[in-house]
Amino acid sequence: MTVHMEKTLPLFMETIRKIKSYEEALGVLYWDLRTGAPRKGMDARSEAIGNLSGDMFKLQTSEELGANLADLERPEAFAQLSEIEQRLVTETRKDYDRSVKIPPKLYQEYVVLAAQSENKWEEAKANNDYAAFQPYLEKVIDYTQQFIDLWGAKATRYDTLLDQYEPGMTTAELDRVFGGLREQLVPLVSAIAESPHKPDTSFLQQTFSKAAQKDYSLFILGQMGYDFEAGRLDESVHPFATGLNPGDVRITTRYLENDVTSALFGTIHEGGHALYEQNIMSELIGTPLCTGTSMGIHESQSRFWENVIGRSKPFWERYYADLQQRFPGQLTVPVDSFYSATNVVEPSLIRIEADELTYNLHIIIRYEIEKLIFNGGAKASELPEIWNAKYKEYLGVEPASNAEGVLQDVHWSGGMFGYFPSYSLGNMYAAQIADTMERELPDFWSLVGRGELHPIKDWLTERIYKYGKLRTPSELINAVTGKSLDSSYLVRYLENKYKQIYKL
Amino acid sequence: MTVHMEKTLPLFMETIRKIKSYEEALGVLYWDLRTGAPRKGMDARSEAIGNLSGDMFKLQTSEELGANLADLERPEAFAQLSEIEQRLVTETRKDYDRSVKIPPKLYQEYVVLAAQSENKWEEAKANNDYAAFQPYLEKVIDYTQQFIDLWGAKATRYDTLLDQYEPGMTTAELDRVFGGLREQLVPLVSAIAESPHKPDTSFLQQTFSKAAQKDYSLFILGQMGYDFEAGRLDESVHPFATGLNPGDVRITTRYLENDVTSALFGTIHEGGHALYEQNIMSELIGTPLCTGTSMGIHESQSRFWENVIGRSKPFWERYYADLQQRFPGQLTVPVDSFYSATNVVEPSLIRIEADELTYNLHIIIRYEIEKLIFNGGAKASELPEIWNAKYKEYLGVEPASNAEGVLQDVHWSGGMFGYFPSYSLGNMYAAQIADTMERELPDFWSLVGRGELHPIKDWLTERIYKYGKLRTPSELINAVTGKSLDSSYLVRYLENKYKQIYKL
Repeated sequence: MTVHMEKTLPLFMETIRKIKSYEEALGVLYWDLRTGAPRKGMDARSEAIGNLSGDMFKLQTSEELGANLADLERPEAFAQLSEIEQRLVTETRKDYDRSVKIPPKLYQEYVVLAAQSENKWEEAKANNDYAAFQPYLEKVIDYTQQFIDLWGAKATRYDTLLDQYEPGMTTAELDRVFGGLREQLVPLVSAIAESPHKPDTSFLQQTFSKAAQKDYSLFILGQMGYDFEAGRLDESVHPFATGLNPGDVRITTRYLENDVTSALFGTIHEGGHALYEQNIMSELIGTPLCTGTSMGIHESQSRFWENVIGRSKPFWERYYADLQQRFPGQLTVPVDSFYSATNVVEPSLIRIEADELTYNLHIIIRYEIEKLIFNGGAKASELPEIWNAKYKEYLGVEPASNAEGVLQDVHWSGGMFGYFPSYSLGNMYAAQIADTMERELPDFWSLVGRGELHPIKDWLTERIYKYGKLRTPSELINAVTGKSLDSSYLVRYLENKYKQIYKL
Repeated sequence: MTVHMEKTLPLFMETIRKIKSYEEALGVLYWDLRTGAPRKGMDARSEAIGNLSGDMFKLQTSEELGANLADLERPEAFAQLSEIEQRLVTETRKDYDRSVKIPPKLYQEYVVLAAQSENKWEEAKANNDYAAFQPYLEKVIDYTQQFIDLWGAKATRYDTLLDQYEPGMTTAELDRVFGGLREQLVPLVSAIAESPHKPDTSFLQQTFSKAAQKDYSLFILGQMGYDFEAGRLDESVHPFATGLNPGDVRITTRYLENDVTSALFGTIHEGGHALYEQNIMSELIGTPLCTGTSMGIHESQSRFWENVIGRSKPFWERYYADLQQRFPGQLTVPVDSFYSATNVVEPSLIRIEADELTYNLHIIIRYEIEKLIFNGGAKASELPEIWNAKYKEYLGVEPASNAEGVLQDVHWSGGMFGYFPSYSLGNMYAAQIADTMERELPDFWSLVGRGELHPIKDWLTERIYKYGKLRTPSELINAVTGKSLDSSYLVRYLENKYKQIYKL
């Protein structure tokens, strides 16, 4: 190692570890805000978050960090770095360039705009008034277009946005996988809608004690191998998982007395996110590689646990009795009926209430619209009409109002374009990974049926979790499954499952 | 306002507000650690706290802040500042000088030493091995002596330490007030010890549901006027209050099933601290003046609410029924018996278990020993003997071991010399303030007896709370009571109360 590098590498490491410390602190501040921080402290808290975020941004964009990066990127220096160090340099360079390419003044204007726009969206949704929101959405799109110009367009302009959440993902690839998905799922959804067999869900219309729900949530998390010495379960209005570091990965859920499945599947979902973050190798702690490699892969883990495992028949053959026991006299239907009732498919208008199958069509609609905006020149004024037409075409339903149509999601108001595809990428990755797991883990479904979930967690740890951001999403899916992303696994999984439930 | 100041004042304000933001963030991180943060996240959390504390220290000691202070301190500039701005400059100057006078290397050595010393103390206490701790205590004393040299000795060397916690407090004044206190209390304690009348406490030996204790704690906090939209009640091993900002003042308590009074009085105590912090005027938010003016005044509020109000007979005449109701069939003794049982006086060895009366003698002993160390040259090796002799003299008890003697408190191991007097200052301030309140608030004890506590909170807000650190402790006590600190109020209060209970 050259004398030069002996100085640069520790300085570089010190800076990225310090950035991670700020992320940890900000993570706790946000977690706290969402789990019971008192209302009247909001202003001071916002100021604290603003000041810390500003100081973190200074660290992330400092000339010193730029100089250290440039020094470590010299071919003769880079060659001497370990694999982890090389990835750290590459990853930090990517973040650094993304941050320094936006002039601070432009970024500040945008932050203010995004906050106003989110407020306006909330109002507009409540009043079903798209016209009031449209000018804000136009401005948010306009700023996003400027960011694409500054960052540089990839193969298409929308690809630049996708890359933020799913590194390396392209419009071309999404067209391929979402195209296949849409073609297969639209007829399946129609067939289900027309099936005379409808699972009976009436027994779910009861009041279920919150305390018992909480007890069961804790029990299931333990069964999944969630480490309570490296996390905690709290309540919040919108469930979430936050990985401060692998030794502190917190999840929240929400207990609804009139819906026993909400907290149940919500907890398993967030638990899946948490298992990923709890099991990242210790060598990555304190670095930007100590997190999931992409939103799509992260979502594959929450959805693998929630849907593939948690909504499977073997899972309930094992765990239904434990659930019944916690609600004496309330869950008297046989396990098959419970299984069917928690897997009802119904084309609907609202994404966050959608089932595992139709969910993907909600996402494809949003993907196609985002692509139209950034690659096709669609205007904000045209979106309600485009939205409604696509819902009619893919799901056979039409929003009666923009509030339950184009205004339903918060994402666009805050400029989160390119994020939606992650949800269905997660479903596709999950099904593809499950296919490999079924072949490689002996008696996979018997394990689930016996409640031996730890070998499954261990398998995922060895193949996925431990790497954190050390592998890109496409490296990972290829290494785990031997193939690049392929929508046919998800199609096959959904067809097998739902043709059986709906007797098609 | 000069052109110069137009630039300096905003820069100064920006820096001190940013320091406050770091304090808020660190406050949340510590609160989180003490209320349930997972064990395995400790290392990453410590690193985050270290990094943020380091950056805060850089802000607190920056040359820029020093230059801005110097500019604002020019007489022609200072004269143009508002009262609050002037106090901000004075207070910040004090903190600044205190911080910059210690060379960073010396301070870092000391931080490491203090951590080691606290660990050693814990071990030594567990093993009753003063000899193992003594060399660490010697080093901590040695560093503290160096700090006194660097900060500069005031009238006495110990005064420099006192000033950290009770600005302006001196050995001369403490000698005066503690002298008076000791002279009066030692015979009173003896008389009580010899009294044949002993309150019956046997009915307290029961199991009290934690849920009902929590419910009652929340009820009493509400009665006191604690604002739950500006705070929350949690559990921790050692109860504490933390004021992040007036809109977010959190308290914790600890529920013991075998002791219903522990959480009860603990909650009222921390609630008193919290009322102070919740009611600081909004003009001080985000500045170093937005906190209690001293440890002694802060402690006066926790002790006023816990002891003067919470252990009074009128209080229980109003609130005993509510307590009985929460523990059906368990609290059947009349209110007078309950009142007496919660006011038992017993000379004992352990400070934190001491009653309201003898507590002061525990403090006076520590004060006299600290004074001997820093003004009298007492050596660490001599402390056990000095300790035991004073306990014998003032309390009539002798520790059987150093573990229940000189090793009982953590404070000295971490270098907190000068802090102990705050506790008894709190008792003296509280009694003196109560005396004024009794005269100025019409029917003071009738208000308590009717559970109308809000006028009391409002009175304290107007006279004390709202000022935060805008008034010094001595300005405050003079303004509120028309007199400087005087131990006779506490003596009179204790004599009246305990002569009645013990029929002396």
